[in-house]
Amino acid sequence: MLFFTQCFGAVLDLIHLRFQHYKAKRVFSAAGQLVCVVNPTHSLKTNTGRHAVGQTSTEQGSLHSHHPLETVHDPQLIPCICPLFSCQWEGHVEVVVSHLRQTHRINILHGAEIVFLATDMHLPAPTDWIIMHSCLGHHFLLVLRKLEKYEGHPQFFATMMLIGTPTQADNFTYRLELNRNQRRLKWEATPRSVLECVDSVISDGDCLVLNTSLAQLFSDNGSLAIGIAITASKVHAAEAEM
Amino acid sequence: MLFFTQCFGAVLDLIHLRFQHYKAKRVFSAAGQLVCVVNPTHSLKTNTGRHAVGQTSTEQGSLHSHHPLETVHDPQLIPCICPLFSCQWEGHVEVVVSHLRQTHRINILHGAEIVFLATDMHLPAPTDWIIMHSCLGHHFLLVLRKLEKYEGHPQFFATMMLIGTPTQADNFTYRLELNRNQRRLKWEATPRSVLECVDSVISDGDCLVLNTSLAQLFSDNGSLAIGIAITASKVHAAEAEM
Repeated sequence: MLFFTQCFGAVLDLIHLRFQHYKAKRVFSAAGQLVCVVNPTHSLKTNTGRHAVGQTSTEQGSLHSHHPLETVHDPQLIPCICPLFSCQWEGHVEVVVSHLRQTHRINILHGAEIVFLATDMHLPAPTDWIIMHSCLGHHFLLVLRKLEKYEGHPQFFATMMLIGTPTQADNFTYRLELNRNQRRLKWEATPRSVLECVDSVISDGDCLVLNTSLAQLFSDNGSLAIGIAITASKVHAAEAEM
Repeated sequence: MLFFTQCFGAVLDLIHLRFQHYKAKRVFSAAGQLVCVVNPTHSLKTNTGRHAVGQTSTEQGSLHSHHPLETVHDPQLIPCICPLFSCQWEGHVEVVVSHLRQTHRINILHGAEIVFLATDMHLPAPTDWIIMHSCLGHHFLLVLRKLEKYEGHPQFFATMMLIGTPTQADNFTYRLELNRNQRRLKWEATPRSVLECVDSVISDGDCLVLNTSLAQLFSDNGSLAIGIAITASKVHAAEAEM
């Protein structure tokens, strides 16, 4: 009986996923953009320090069983920590992509322009929606985080980070765009490097920030579509023009 | 002695204003855009209802001495209230422009694209920065408001309203653009009509919203430059393209 219930649940999940893909394609197919449905990751960690989390020890244990701490104390390595909540993995910046892919099952999308469709925006904070984006010879990480920096006032923070050094990151510009209900919001900036902690980028508010009301205006049935584009940096020229 | 002190203060104010104009021109002259320096108006009113304010009775009295209540109870009039904090003036929508100009000394700028330079962003909430913009045969009102919707967490809200009816407003699109420090933030939407209360637009968060940290990133020496453009509405077409 339990087996049948589980099978039925799995079939329902598949139908739901298929429906979301269909809906996303219906909305964006005109532009020929690649649409990626991104499911949320509910974070166990709150605003406590990254290395002082007690409640996630079980999860950390399972992660460390795949990635032992062999790289942590090597002074030759750039001290790169996993940009995700609840994970204390540390290692060389060049193996972050394989860590995220293998351990966290984060997909990689290819192409200069994609649409990131974050589902279930109603889930309580803290929640992450994450995707990797391979473009212009580099990997980028898009993090959308729902966070309650001020109690009872959840906000959405979206940023793009280069899986590389800050010097490499300076060569690019990323654009996040929301477009719905006769409203359009665009954020353009130089990506930050994953060597700078994503938590600090978000706590500094140096990213696209949405109140719940704005997020609802741009959402469709609880899903938020974010258009993403990455280009070689022309910000200096644009700024001089204005 | 007091006379000399006052003269000296006035000269200092003039030098400060001249410096701000020079600075604004230096930044934006390349684009040939019209720059308007907008000084803040510190609001006495907080989040209490518009018609239940005791502390501003003196100010209201002085406003009503110029604009008696002759128009308030005429059922033929569209019930339009002054979009500013602390003012309970009501009247026909067609005389809002002269009310704002004469009573509140709000300037009118002409041209499709202008730069709004809001000074003294550090002032405590609630504070307004307001300008009228004459363009495409209509008057628009740009309101930038610093407000503490959540205690200890001031935010900036910027919106553009048409001094006209909602049907007229639907024919336009406005764009607000911030551009500094290799970051760019753009908000595009259909302007709301002043017949809808500016307070409700802001409390709904249906406008450009900036946290203090983002406002600081886009500010230069405590002044925030917002590029404004108004066009005949093409949002429907743009949305269909995406």
